[in-house]
Amino acid sequence: MRYGVIGTGAIGGYYGARLQEAGAEVHFLVHRDYAHVQQHGLVVHSFAGDVELQSINAHASIETMPVCDVVLIALKTTQNHLLKLLLPPLVAPGSLVITLQNGLGVEADIAALVPESIAVAGGLCFICANKTAPGSIEHLDYGHINAGLYRGDQHHLDTLAATLPQFKLVSDLALARWQKLVWNVPFNSLSVILGATTDQLMGNPASRDLAYAIMQEVQAAAAVNGVAIATKFLATMLEHTAAMKPYHTSMKLDFEARRPLEYEAIIGAPLRAAAQAPYMHMLYAQLKYLDAIHCRTGSR
Amino acid sequence: MRYGVIGTGAIGGYYGARLQEAGAEVHFLVHRDYAHVQQHGLVVHSFAGDVELQSINAHASIETMPVCDVVLIALKTTQNHLLKLLLPPLVAPGSLVITLQNGLGVEADIAALVPESIAVAGGLCFICANKTAPGSIEHLDYGHINAGLYRGDQHHLDTLAATLPQFKLVSDLALARWQKLVWNVPFNSLSVILGATTDQLMGNPASRDLAYAIMQEVQAAAAVNGVAIATKFLATMLEHTAAMKPYHTSMKLDFEARRPLEYEAIIGAPLRAAAQAPYMHMLYAQLKYLDAIHCRTGSR
Repeated sequence: MRYGVIGTGAIGGYYGARLQEAGAEVHFLVHRDYAHVQQHGLVVHSFAGDVELQSINAHASIETMPVCDVVLIALKTTQNHLLKLLLPPLVAPGSLVITLQNGLGVEADIAALVPESIAVAGGLCFICANKTAPGSIEHLDYGHINAGLYRGDQHHLDTLAATLPQFKLVSDLALARWQKLVWNVPFNSLSVILGATTDQLMGNPASRDLAYAIMQEVQAAAAVNGVAIATKFLATMLEHTAAMKPYHTSMKLDFEARRPLEYEAIIGAPLRAAAQAPYMHMLYAQLKYLDAIHCRTGSR
Repeated sequence: MRYGVIGTGAIGGYYGARLQEAGAEVHFLVHRDYAHVQQHGLVVHSFAGDVELQSINAHASIETMPVCDVVLIALKTTQNHLLKLLLPPLVAPGSLVITLQNGLGVEADIAALVPESIAVAGGLCFICANKTAPGSIEHLDYGHINAGLYRGDQHHLDTLAATLPQFKLVSDLALARWQKLVWNVPFNSLSVILGATTDQLMGNPASRDLAYAIMQEVQAAAAVNGVAIATKFLATMLEHTAAMKPYHTSMKLDFEARRPLEYEAIIGAPLRAAAQAPYMHMLYAQLKYLDAIHCRTGSR
């Protein structure tokens, strides 16, 4: 099995390293850190056991990459406009493309870029990991992926799940996506808008109740799309969040690092799929404003 | 006519100074700046003409203040819990109390603190003024007050309006309050939540459209309370805001100075008076969170 990883940040680097550790042939498309990883390889410091890869198949461009059985997409969704150039040369009939990205509708966007003969899947990552230096990834907590088929043949996805125990197969990808949105919509948004960590949001009754109200709106939007999320699930997510260590959401880390915010995939897409969603509408507008300001000026 | 001013900040200091300049006897309740103004008086630097009062009737406590014909309340609404001690000793049958505060329901709260024989009025201030140093007020722009009777005799209010041309009498105080909320709810809230000046909010389509959507929600809340605000009024307010010089709202100035935010009077009260107001609900929760955080830590 030959794997390709598009985007060697924390997510792509971590799971790519785990695949290579498990014996697979892995090709990494590397942007900024190419010179470093070409010389020094890739290191993962993980609470679940370190990985030190002295040498990896690093590529500065897709031109040197081979066709792959499985392509993992680990770019930020804000970079997805690049995929129509990056993805087609890496696949052939029978290949699987799996996106490890946040949000809604990403599988459909990706499926539109490759022929029908290419299988498409989605994986929802539950992991706390950061790239802390070139070629160096810190894995702090969690690590599993809820992965489900969007279209095509299940075969490669089963192989992937058999190779890496982190991949848990789910039968209903749409449910998995909406379940993750139940958490991502309130906590990613509010963490940026209010400059707050999860423990701060949970520690204040006003923001905690607001987070729950937003969760209910996402639940209603899911229902409009034929996806039933139990109310008990919302309460459980809130309890888990209260029990978590103080956590900077991925969007908050992006904001602090002055990277573009994934507000279209995480808030905009479910907002457009909802019937009426005033909370999401306001969060979307607030994030769009902050994204424009911080990308332009580097501050608020 | 004898006037009492409770709260000698930018608003109380400015209009009190104008009253004394016009020949009235004015007594100022002064908190932090008492020693300074007792010695040096009060100075207003104004685009409409300076006022230099070498000596004023300054009081560090209400115990030295006389009963007044008219009491102007110019505290922040976050200090209104003090009024049940400060206000009753300053009034007698026939007195007028006029609140120059922002928000909704402040006249009713004040009316409940004094006997029926005391007239109560409200004044909506349209002024850009800041206290820049002890006993020193900078008046940058505008300056009129839309004032209307809430209960009791009109007499003193007419005298006040005859004494100071800045006081414009309005027949419908409730309309005046809701009209001001149409602006204050979106722009005070968003200026704090997004860390933005008015020109920044108007310069970005996402935040400008959001401000307009919030205005429409305030308009609907007014309608539920029997107050009709024309849609044309909303568009006009938005145009005026776009034409204004970059402006830090009063709530943003409070936030930056780490003072408590007037979110109860400006957002909470109209929210509670509305039928359904998800935008105001979210703004209220966001401000309540930020107020708690910034008052405790002095930062976000």
